[in-house]
Amino acid sequence: MHTNPIDRRDFLRTSAKAAAVLAVPGSLMNLTAARPETRLGVALLGLGNYATNQLAPALGYTEHCRLAGIVTGTPSKIAEWKQKYDLPDKNIYSYDNFDSIADNPDIDIVYVVTPNALHLPFAERAARAGKHVICEKPMEISSDRCKMMIEACAKAGKKLQIGYRLRYDPFHQEIERLGREQVHGKVKMVNTGFSFYGVNNSNWRFTDPKLSGGGPMMDIGIYCLQGIRYATGEEPVAVTAQSFKTIMDKLPGMEETIFWQMEFPSGATAVCSTSYVARDNYLRVSTENGVYGVDPAYTYGPLAGYINNQSMGEYNHRQQTAQMDAFALSIKNNTPVKTPGEEGLRDMLCIEAIYKAARKKKRISLL
Amino acid sequence: MHTNPIDRRDFLRTSAKAAAVLAVPGSLMNLTAARPETRLGVALLGLGNYATNQLAPALGYTEHCRLAGIVTGTPSKIAEWKQKYDLPDKNIYSYDNFDSIADNPDIDIVYVVTPNALHLPFAERAARAGKHVICEKPMEISSDRCKMMIEACAKAGKKLQIGYRLRYDPFHQEIERLGREQVHGKVKMVNTGFSFYGVNNSNWRFTDPKLSGGGPMMDIGIYCLQGIRYATGEEPVAVTAQSFKTIMDKLPGMEETIFWQMEFPSGATAVCSTSYVARDNYLRVSTENGVYGVDPAYTYGPLAGYINNQSMGEYNHRQQTAQMDAFALSIKNNTPVKTPGEEGLRDMLCIEAIYKAARKKKRISLL
Repeated sequence: MHTNPIDRRDFLRTSAKAAAVLAVPGSLMNLTAARPETRLGVALLGLGNYATNQLAPALGYTEHCRLAGIVTGTPSKIAEWKQKYDLPDKNIYSYDNFDSIADNPDIDIVYVVTPNALHLPFAERAARAGKHVICEKPMEISSDRCKMMIEACAKAGKKLQIGYRLRYDPFHQEIERLGREQVHGKVKMVNTGFSFYGVNNSNWRFTDPKLSGGGPMMDIGIYCLQGIRYATGEEPVAVTAQSFKTIMDKLPGMEETIFWQMEFPSGATAVCSTSYVARDNYLRVSTENGVYGVDPAYTYGPLAGYINNQSMGEYNHRQQTAQMDAFALSIKNNTPVKTPGEEGLRDMLCIEAIYKAARKKKRISLL
Repeated sequence: MHTNPIDRRDFLRTSAKAAAVLAVPGSLMNLTAARPETRLGVALLGLGNYATNQLAPALGYTEHCRLAGIVTGTPSKIAEWKQKYDLPDKNIYSYDNFDSIADNPDIDIVYVVTPNALHLPFAERAARAGKHVICEKPMEISSDRCKMMIEACAKAGKKLQIGYRLRYDPFHQEIERLGREQVHGKVKMVNTGFSFYGVNNSNWRFTDPKLSGGGPMMDIGIYCLQGIRYATGEEPVAVTAQSFKTIMDKLPGMEETIFWQMEFPSGATAVCSTSYVARDNYLRVSTENGVYGVDPAYTYGPLAGYINNQSMGEYNHRQQTAQMDAFALSIKNNTPVKTPGEEGLRDMLCIEAIYKAARKKKRISLL
C-alpha cells in the first residue's frame, strides 16, 4: 500500500537523466526546458527554514509543479537561490514589487511561508494577482483572518490549499481511512501529543505573539488537532484546556504547554498535549476492537505506523512533494482541494475555543 | 538488567525436582514438606478471578512465601482449591471463622483480594489476628478508610503492602530509576492511559459503586496515577479532570471515562486517561533529553519498554511473584515495604482530588 521512497530514489539513480540531475546541482530546471512545460510554476514567498530546507528540495521531486520563482524580503538571499535553482531574474520578486507577479505566466501558484500573521495580506495579494495560493499552517492567527483569506481567494476565483503536509502522508491517510470505514469498529478515543524541548529566542515563533498568534498550540499542536479530526472523522462539540508556564522570562504572551480535551458527537473523546518544554510525537487511536496509530507521528520522517502493536512499517515519505503535487493536480483537473481554507478555518475555530477554555478554565461548546 | 522469565522456566524444566512439579499437578506443596519450611505462609482472602488466575499461580514461583491457606465466602470453591493446591482443612477459612486464623502458625500473611470496600474490614481482622497484610489495589474506596487500615496494621505491629504489582516489574522499576537519576535530564511530561473496552454487568466493578468506590479511575486508572508518581518521583500539587459518560444505562454512580491532568513542584505535568469504553495501555515519559516508556504498560505481560524509539525489550515478568516475595523478604528482614499503606493512601488522596476536580469542573490544589 505504501509508496517506498527508497525504491523511488534507487530507480532515479539508475536513470541517466536523473544521474545528470544528481551530478550537476541546479540543472533540474534546464533538463525540462527542451520539452513543453506542463508543470505548474510555484513561487515560494518567505524564504525561511521551511521554504529553504523542506519546500524547495521537495519541489525537486514534484511531477505536477516546479519551483519557478521566489518572493523575498531579504535581497541577500537571492543570489544563492538563483544559483541553486537556476531561477531567471524575471521570476524573483521583493515584497514591494510582488503584485506585478500578476503579469508573469511562469507563476501559477504562490506558496506563502511567512510568519503566521502575514499569511493573510500575502495570500490576498497573491489571489488578487490571479495566482492560486498555498498557505502554510497555521492558516492565520484568528478565525476572522482565515475567513478573509477564504473570501479573497473565492472572489479571485483561485484555489487555496493549507499546507497540511501530513494529510498527504500514507500513514495518516490510513488513519483517516481506518476511522472512516470503521475497520476496527467505531473510534472511541484519540490520545495525541506533539512537543519539542527548546525555545529559540532568535525565532519569531518564540518571541513575537503578534506574528505567531500563540505558542506550541498554533505551531505544532495544530497537527494533533488535525490528527484528531481525521482520526475521528468528526467535528468536536466541546473542548476543555489547561495552560502551563514554568519559564517566566520566555515565550512572552503565549503558552508554553497546553493540554486540551475534546468531545465528539459520537461520544468519542480526545486527550492532547503540546509543549515547547517536552517531547511528544504520537497519534494513538483507540476503537471498539483495537488500537492503531503513528509514532513518531508528526515530524518529516521517518514515521512509523502500527495496528494492535504490530508495525505498519516505518518510512520517509515526501510529504511536501505529495502535498504540492495534489494541489497542482486539483488545479489542472479543477477538482476539490483536500485541505482547503475551510479546513484551516475549522482548526482555527478549535484553537480559539481551546485558548478560551484554558483562559476561562471552563468547558467551551463548539455547537 | 531484566530477568528473563523464559530462561528461568527453561532452568526449572531441566531440574528433576521441578520436572516432578510440572508432571504432577498439585504436588508443589508436598515437595517441600520434607525440608524445614522457611517460606512464609500466605492465605488468599477472596477467591475471585485475580486470586484464582494470577495470585495462586504466582505463588507457585515464589521463593520466600507460599500459598498456605484460603479464606472464602463461597464454600463451593473450596474443593477445587484444596485439590489443586493440596491445602489442609485446617488452613481453610470462611468469613465467619476467619478470626481464628490468629491461632494458625502456618499463616503469616493474609492477602485481601475482595471488592474494594471490603478491604478495610478484612485487613483490620487480619491485623488483629496478628497477620501481616497485603491489600489489593485500590487500597480502599476513600482516604479515610485507607488511614484506618494503616492505623489498624500499625497498632497490631504488622506490615502492610498494597498490591501494586508493577512496582516490582523491571520495566517500571527502570522508569522509576531513569527519572530519579535524571538519566535523560529532568522529567518534563508524562502521557499515560489505561483503558479497556467492555462493561461486564456480572461484575461488581461495573455495577456496584458502594463496593468499587468508582469506575475505571479506581480500577485501572490507578496504575497510571502510580506510573506518573514514580516516573516523576514527585507528589502532585494540583489536578484538573473531566468525566464523560455515553452509555447511560450502565456503570451506575460511576464514571465511564475520565481524563485528568497533574502539575508537579518541578513544573512537570501529566496527561492521563482511563476508560471502560476505549483501549489504552501506555506510559510515556518526556524529559529534557529524550522520551522513554512502557507500551504495553499495565497489563500482566508481555510488556515492552523503549528509550528514544529504541526497544528496551519485551517480556513477561512474574509481577505478582516478585511483589509477594518482596513483601515476604521485608517481613523476614524487617525492612521497609516498597509499596506500603501510605502509598495506597497517597493515590487515594489523588483520586479523591481528581473526582472532585471533575465534579466541580475546576482545578483542585493538593497542597
